Formats: sequence, C-alpha cells, structure tokens
Amino acid sequence: MTGINRQFILQARPQGMLAPGDLQLKEAALPELKDGQALARVTYLSIDPTMRVWMAMDSYLPAVGIGEVMRALGFAEIVESRHPDYKKGDRVTGTTGLQEYFVIDSRASQQLVQKVPKIPFVSDTVFLGTLGINGLTAFFGMEIAQPKKGETLVVSAAAGATGSIAGQIGKIRGCRVVGIAGTDEKCNWVTKELGFDAAINYKHADWREKLAAAVPNGLDIDFENVGGEIMSEVLGLMNLHGRVVLCGLISGYTRQDPGLASFGTVLVKRLRVEGFILLDYAPRFMEAATQLGQWKMFGKIKDRETMVEGLEKAPEAINMLFTGGNIGKLIVKV
Amino acid sequence: MTGINRQFILQARPQGMLAPGDLQLKEAALPELKDGQALARVTYLSIDPTMRVWMAMDSYLPAVGIGEVMRALGFAEIVESRHPDYKKGDRVTGTTGLQEYFVIDSRASQQLVQKVPKIPFVSDTVFLGTLGINGLTAFFGMEIAQPKKGETLVVSAAAGATGSIAGQIGKIRGCRVVGIAGTDEKCNWVTKELGFDAAINYKHADWREKLAAAVPNGLDIDFENVGGEIMSEVLGLMNLHGRVVLCGLISGYTRQDPGLASFGTVLVKRLRVEGFILLDYAPRFMEAATQLGQWKMFGKIKDRETMVEGLEKAPEAINMLFTGGNIGKLIVKV
Repeated sequence: MTGINRQFILQARPQGMLAPGDLQLKEAALPELKDGQALARVTYLSIDPTMRVWMAMDSYLPAVGIGEVMRALGFAEIVESRHPDYKKGDRVTGTTGLQEYFVIDSRASQQLVQKVPKIPFVSDTVFLGTLGINGLTAFFGMEIAQPKKGETLVVSAAAGATGSIAGQIGKIRGCRVVGIAGTDEKCNWVTKELGFDAAINYKHADWREKLAAAVPNGLDIDFENVGGEIMSEVLGLMNLHGRVVLCGLISGYTRQDPGLASFGTVLVKRLRVEGFILLDYAPRFMEAATQLGQWKMFGKIKDRETMVEGLEKAPEAINMLFTGGNIGKLIVKV
Repeated sequence: MTGINRQFILQARPQGMLAPGDLQLKEAALPELKDGQALARVTYLSIDPTMRVWMAMDSYLPAVGIGEVMRALGFAEIVESRHPDYKKGDRVTGTTGLQEYFVIDSRASQQLVQKVPKIPFVSDTVFLGTLGINGLTAFFGMEIAQPKKGETLVVSAAAGATGSIAGQIGKIRGCRVVGIAGTDEKCNWVTKELGFDAAINYKHADWREKLAAAVPNGLDIDFENVGGEIMSEVLGLMNLHGRVVLCGLISGYTRQDPGLASFGTVLVKRLRVEGFILLDYAPRFMEAATQLGQWKMFGKIKDRETMVEGLEKAPEAINMLFTGGNIGKLIVKV
C-alpha cells in the first residue's frame, strides 16, 4: 500500500505540561508490507495519564525514545494483511502509537493486539475505555482492594475513565462510595448518573471538611489515582488496617514529584498500600472484560466520553488530563 | 508503703531532640495501696524510638499528656500487693512509666502487665528486648514479610534492638540478609556476630553503590525502621512485587517529617507496603515469645545491650536512639 502515515514523534521530554514541539507531527511513507505483517488504520486513540510518564522516564515500561513514534493505545482496522492471524476488515486494539497507521508483525502479543468484535449499538471506543485500559484497571484494582459490603470507598479522579468505573464496582460490591473530583459538573455526574453516594469538589475551600463529613464511618479503601495533597488528606481519614490501592499518582506526573508528605500515616494506621500495573494482569484480561461487558450491558456500569477530533489535537488532549478538561474517557478520533 | 517515687514528668513536647526540661524528674509520695492494687519497683526501663512519638502527638496511642508521667515499658518486681493476681516478689513487665515505682490496678491488661519467670543465666532484661517489644516486633513484622528461602531482605537500623532480630529471623528463614547501620562497629557486629551476609554503613559517601552491589539479585523484602532518604534508596533496589514491612520511620521522629520522596516507586514496582503496630498482636505475644525463646536458647538469635545506669539518665538515653549511640537493646537501669 502506498501512502502517507502521519505520526507524532517524541522530540523532547516534557517539563511539566506538554509544550509545543515536545511531540511533532511528521509524515512518513507507509511501509511495504512483508510476510507476517498487517497494516491497520487507526480510528481512535486512547488518551491516558500514563502516556505522560512514558514520555518522561523509564518506569514499568521503558520511556519512549527521542525520535520514536509516541506510544499510545488505539483502536484500528486492518486494511491490508500478509499476517496469518489478521485479514482485511478485522478490528483490533493494541499499542498502535499516536499515528494514522500501524504495522502488526510477529511481535503482535507485545503490541497487545487483540481482535475485537463489532457490538451492535455500542461504540468501538468501548474497547479503549470500559472494556479497555480503564475498565480493566478498575476491575483488577478493586480486586486488590477486596471491598466488603458496608465498607466505605473513596475514589480520587472520580470522574476520570478509571475512577468512574472503580467507584461503580464499589457500588456493585455494596460499598458506600465517595468520589473526589475537580468540578461540580464532575461531582454531579458521578453522584446523579453513576450512583456514588457523595462527591467532593477539591477546588472548594472547605473540601477537607466536606470529605470528612461524607465518611462518618471513616474510610476502609482508597482507590488512589492522584497522590500528593489529596492522598495525604484521604490517609488522614482512613480506618485502622485500611487498604490503599495505588492505581495512579497523576498529581506528580507534570511537576517535580513531591512524594507523599503523610507517609507516616501508613505506619500509624497500619495501612496496606499496594501498587499495581495493569500489564501484570494480561493473562486475565478476557475474564475481566467479560464481567465488565456484562455489567455494562445490564446498566450496572455507565460510561461517558470526551471526544477530541483530529490526530493533530493529541498533544492538547494529553494536557487536558492534567488540567481536568475531560469527563470520563478521553479519546482522540483520528 | 511510705516513701518517695521519682518520676519523669512530660513538661513540654520536644522540638527535634529532647531538650533539658522537656522531661523533668520530680518526686512524689508513694500512694497508699487500695484493694485491687499492687506496687512494683521498676528495675529496668526499655528505651524505644516510639517514646519520642508518644511525647509529640497522638498516634496509635494517645500522646502522653503534659504533666503526666512519661510512658515507658519496664521490668519491675512486686514489693507490696493488695491485688489478687500478684504477690510480693512477682516479676512483671508492663507500661511502668519512666519512674521508680508503679501501681498495678484493675487496668492491668491495659498496662500490658505480664508476669515473667526468672530464667537461669539470662538477664531479666531479655523480657524487654528479645522476648519483649523488639523480639515481638521483629517476629510479627517478619511474619507479614513472608520471607521465602533464597530471597533478599534488607533491614535498616540493622544494629538496633528490633532490626538485629528481624535480620536474624531472615537468616533462619533462608534469606540473604543485608543490614544498613550508621557505624562500622555496628556493621561488623551484624555481619560477624549475627551472621548477616552484608552490612552497609550509610555514613560512608559511597553507601548507595555498596548497597546496590550487596544485592545483586535486587531486594524482595524491606524491613523498614528508618524511612526518609534511606528508604527512598532501598525502594529503588526493590524487585517487582516486593514487600515493604513498615516497622518504624525513625528518621522522621525528631524533625519535620519530610514524608517519602520516592513514593511513586511503590506504584511503578507494584510494591506492597504494610504498616503494623505491635499492640495489634497482643493475643499472640506468648506464641511469639515461645518461638523467640527457643531460638535464643539454641543460639539462633543473639542479642546485645547498651545499658545506661540511673533513672536520671533516661532523657539522654532517649536521645541516643536518634544519634545512633546504642548498639542492640537500649536499657536504663533504675
């Protein structure tokens, strides 16, 4: 196939928010397919906080190299194939990268390529959100949390793609669920639409008092997406022997990470803090997706998207995650 | 019984190290015993880092009140009794307080009073150290750590009363054990006497490199007593899914606690960090002491004491914990 592939190349490691030029949109010729390769056209890109980490440093995955295509999860459709496992028209998710086309090759499993079906009346993007990175992350994180009926769960970044599902799983498990988010609109969404018992806008001056008032029996579980000051405040409300599931620390991704000031609370309150990374659960993705799909079908889990149109908007979209611009799953439509 | 009881009264909450006058030695008349009370003469006092926390703030126990006798664990002998459970000559440990005499009453279980035997050829102080707060803390902490044969364990404050036993339990369990301590003498003690595989003096400029070199297979378990910079360095060497048992954070007890700068490592490395407090294990103290006693009898656990003579030296002794002045168990002989 001849043609042009527009790709975002990592040119510089961002300091703080992404600056113009950290990611540069370039054009490359589409490669000639070799035997064992398939070419897929990317239709949707998943925009996730972890991308900011991939740009900055080695973490649970190596940093994206300078001069390389920026790593991203996406949804794509096979347009040409010389790969035995994929044929034209097949629909897949995987680490497509921030680009219009990507090549599946013998490393397909490392590329996390999964064929997915067309589900009537459901957007393809469900495979990036509720049945993708966010739903799966919420599922396994809540498994670590082991919620029991009647316990109180707090979720930070509650209106984000992962937090919103984690909180709904908490409701399914019979918990009192309190969300923390940065706008009243987000708080209204998680309480009125998703069924959270309460939500606190941490940009209000009295949020600390309101959070304390919302958890009269203290907190048994913290599903932590944010870290920093919000987490420090949450730890102060934890019950003895509470569990903290460490899913993300987004407050530290765009600045010099100050660490956790209130770390001593972990000792005094005998907390169990457990970090986890979704990739470790790859052998169980189908199990989780099946359960999540069922919950979604029966309306136990609701989701919402913020859609940004055009590949060229991807850097702005990534920054939106850190300014709180999105509600629910943030997607770039290519 | 008539007479005088010399007691250390908390007069001011210390800022940093204890200053003269934070604890004041005062004399009080011995009380008339009522029915249900027993009077015990304190012979040895256990000097522990947690005392500094008790002086400063509410934590897992309420702070000692200003004007109250300073809380301390001690060894004592009953000198007079109108309590049905104790007779003259009985020997006990408990929260005697920093004083010469204490009164056991109906709150004996809250006072953690335990009768202990006279063991031939063994100092009474074993009930404050290896069979007391330190041995028990090491025992339950290492139970949380779940060490497996062949794993690598690091212990900070390795020559302290608790760390030295935790490391020896690690050896009993078949681990490679590396200690971190603040003098070469301490490092020599834990390697040459206690059988640690290596020990690193963190006051040497190249300690970070030496620690890394001492753990060629990375770290599976951190038995953490110190926190702060030492813990941050340790976390950087942890293996994926490693366990951190949070026993103490002594680096933060005498200064504005800076928290944990490298907290994000917990997420990236999927660590499990668990705080614990010995008091939660009270129903299992006898079980643990029995095992510890056996290990001590068969020479699997060795211990050492730093003995300070005279009740009036107790404030200096407490400060020694934070300047690294003691090796092994720190005791004040009353």
